[in-house]
Amino acid sequence: MRKLIKKGLIINILGVLLMIESFFMFLSLGVAFIYREGDLLAFLYAAIITLTTGALLFLSTRKSERNITKREGYIIVSFVWIVFSFFGSLPFLFSGAIPDFTDAFFETMSGFTTTGSSILNDIESLPHGILFWRSITQWMGGMGIIVLTIAILPVLGIGGMQLFIAEVPGPSPDKLHPRIQETAKRLWGIYMAFTTLEAALLWLGGMSIFDAICHSFTTMATGGYSTKQASIAHWDSPFIQYVIIFFMFLAGTNFTLSYLGLHLRFRKIIKDEEFKWYIGFILIFTTLIATTLIIFHGDGFGISIRESLFQVVSIITTTGFITADYLSWTPFLSVLILIMMFLGGSTGSTGGGVKIMRIVMVIKNGFFELKRLIHPNAVIPVRYKGHAVNSQVLSNILAFFSIYMLIFAGGVVIMSTMEPSLDTAVSAVATSLGNIGPGLGSVGPMDNFYDLPNFGKWFMSFLMLVGRLELFTVLILFTPAFWKR
Amino acid sequence: MRKLIKKGLIINILGVLLMIESFFMFLSLGVAFIYREGDLLAFLYAAIITLTTGALLFLSTRKSERNITKREGYIIVSFVWIVFSFFGSLPFLFSGAIPDFTDAFFETMSGFTTTGSSILNDIESLPHGILFWRSITQWMGGMGIIVLTIAILPVLGIGGMQLFIAEVPGPSPDKLHPRIQETAKRLWGIYMAFTTLEAALLWLGGMSIFDAICHSFTTMATGGYSTKQASIAHWDSPFIQYVIIFFMFLAGTNFTLSYLGLHLRFRKIIKDEEFKWYIGFILIFTTLIATTLIIFHGDGFGISIRESLFQVVSIITTTGFITADYLSWTPFLSVLILIMMFLGGSTGSTGGGVKIMRIVMVIKNGFFELKRLIHPNAVIPVRYKGHAVNSQVLSNILAFFSIYMLIFAGGVVIMSTMEPSLDTAVSAVATSLGNIGPGLGSVGPMDNFYDLPNFGKWFMSFLMLVGRLELFTVLILFTPAFWKR
Repeated sequence: MRKLIKKGLIINILGVLLMIESFFMFLSLGVAFIYREGDLLAFLYAAIITLTTGALLFLSTRKSERNITKREGYIIVSFVWIVFSFFGSLPFLFSGAIPDFTDAFFETMSGFTTTGSSILNDIESLPHGILFWRSITQWMGGMGIIVLTIAILPVLGIGGMQLFIAEVPGPSPDKLHPRIQETAKRLWGIYMAFTTLEAALLWLGGMSIFDAICHSFTTMATGGYSTKQASIAHWDSPFIQYVIIFFMFLAGTNFTLSYLGLHLRFRKIIKDEEFKWYIGFILIFTTLIATTLIIFHGDGFGISIRESLFQVVSIITTTGFITADYLSWTPFLSVLILIMMFLGGSTGSTGGGVKIMRIVMVIKNGFFELKRLIHPNAVIPVRYKGHAVNSQVLSNILAFFSIYMLIFAGGVVIMSTMEPSLDTAVSAVATSLGNIGPGLGSVGPMDNFYDLPNFGKWFMSFLMLVGRLELFTVLILFTPAFWKR
Repeated sequence: MRKLIKKGLIINILGVLLMIESFFMFLSLGVAFIYREGDLLAFLYAAIITLTTGALLFLSTRKSERNITKREGYIIVSFVWIVFSFFGSLPFLFSGAIPDFTDAFFETMSGFTTTGSSILNDIESLPHGILFWRSITQWMGGMGIIVLTIAILPVLGIGGMQLFIAEVPGPSPDKLHPRIQETAKRLWGIYMAFTTLEAALLWLGGMSIFDAICHSFTTMATGGYSTKQASIAHWDSPFIQYVIIFFMFLAGTNFTLSYLGLHLRFRKIIKDEEFKWYIGFILIFTTLIATTLIIFHGDGFGISIRESLFQVVSIITTTGFITADYLSWTPFLSVLILIMMFLGGSTGSTGGGVKIMRIVMVIKNGFFELKRLIHPNAVIPVRYKGHAVNSQVLSNILAFFSIYMLIFAGGVVIMSTMEPSLDTAVSAVATSLGNIGPGLGSVGPMDNFYDLPNFGKWFMSFLMLVGRLELFTVLILFTPAFWKR
């Protein structure tokens, strides 16, 4: 007999998290105060509403039972992104930067899920406080996702990080708390350090301090929001581009590897199987694209390498920054971009998508199936990092891949009722589900999601959430078995 | 230590099969003789060359070892389709109906794999012998595929028919012969009976005897070659359309079910899980399309139902007959058509694609993964037809699905180097790999594959073969482990 879901506890934790969200609103209020562009009251109201709501929720449920079980875990994780997006859209609404609720919610969900798809047509006209808030939603989302994928989801049985459990020993199911705190502190330390370092370098490269901070927020989150309509292309600076390439690459790397790197344990990093594949995929796609640009477009060698590398790292890590209108490249390259949207960053990074490790396991399992056919009597397990992969973990990964494809296919069907062009429908779904940002067609790098009908925007928001929370976390809430006592 | 591959035996069997192919060429020669349209010599030469080659191969290897093992099985199965397509293209070349070898090979491979994609621009201008040959390549391909999927592939460990093994006990690996003969006789009996019945009904419906026979050949094979440029739309007869719908449906059903049906064991049919899903998918897609046609196109009720049902059954069974230019429907419906291309017929039918059973298992495994997350300590196997599915069978099915998707994605990348439009590239790959026939864009129902560059035609031919032989049969030949002694 299962127990009742502890509603009090869930509300209590959401209350605490809302108070944290309000802290970041006050931070944005500070920025608004510096620039004084009319968004001051918007942040004040939003922060007070969020803080008050959070405090009331927290205080009213202070005495609720403390033990979190997995079921509460699933609910909290899914709801925190929704609740944050709801309150997070208040500054946009109150300031008039985004007057429509659907648009504001879309923009905020795209922020917190580190997607980076936007409905804004004239970003530079917005007040600095709003731009700061927009960037920091991504940074918070990235912070949340690191803790989620490295510390929480493995405990809930999701995320493919099961493969790392041997290295990052997880807590026992009913005592999430102490271990999460410890892991979170370390990882956030790295996240903070990288963010600061990148901001400094971008400032040295010629960005204003404000732009440097905002872009380092959205790089480390693999979010991709920019303070400029033209994204990174605005600066036309190879130095800035290479700095961002480097930090996008870091953000798409498993943060436990960065932790090892800071402790100078490089041998372990070089031997990491996912890391090798991650670099491999980046090199293969960059070579393909750069070669095509040089030979068929007659572009220069240096610029072709840089633009390809930038776009490949930006899409594979699911950041979505833009330096070139890749739609003006040949259709062959657009298809490569589309394919890359399914790769995603490494597990335990802030990147979205299917994730490198899962793609590798899917390919490996195919090869091993052929081996099994050749040697039908031998037991041939799929190996990863030198170890045989548990059949349940493998089945989970294959299930993830196939559900991802089914949701993608279903999503394209639904989008095609609103979008006449196939490349727009296909890429809008791929980019939302993979938390990337820009797509192809009329949601391409030089366009945005403003023209989608309202239903489309809500649907895209839903896909962002499902993709961000590794599918199962959200889907499980739709099964009757989950809610049965 | 593994044994050498028995080349003599392989050549011996290919020799026998070539002699059988020449028999069908002589049959077409008979048709050419009746109509006397200048293709007489073409068939005479082709048949003699094929017969002589077959006989020489057979006689020269008469004394080779008899025991077929799995390895020879894989090689024979892959090569028979290639060798058949090579010799099968001779009548097209000799008669001048298709003067180019690439085109002729494409058309013949499309025939033997029961795909039905064509490079012909003016079908009605061709001599009857050639049209008959074109239709009978599909009929032979269908015959081959039934025996292959129901009797041979399960022994080789491929095809998902493992799930049926309990019902259709397979032979021991090294004694393929007696069981295959017995099964083949029964299944071919049904295949023949259905073909005859359909031909009679089509003739009653107003087709000429010639057209009725040709269309019943290509219906039962789920091939889709027509003797008319406009395909089934040529007749504009609801009766003919419903007859073809019915027989496409039968052809897309597992032939062991038809066998049960002929023995009046209907309860077993109704309880068959794949059959229920098969009907379910057809009903869902027909309802979606018919509703859209009625509401948004303002088409009549009766004609909308018929056209939707025809197109849905035609695509799901991977036949590819046309009664309407579905590209003139809304983009939403084109996407539905594209999605249906991945379903395919039932296992043990002549249909291609992923197959209903595998799609069902992929969906089920996803749901069961969610259940497993809710009850992490319970062992929850995926069930099919009331039985727990063996984890190795499941892993094989999931591997099939993911490899299918990876080949699809890779295929789209390659095609996009030749095809600027995404819907053409995507649908050409989907329709070839799924053995359907028509696609979208410039390979749509009113167009054909003639304008593809040569490399594209060879690539499509390869995809047809890979798809037709359930991926693994062909892919295994590309692994070094297979050829190692």
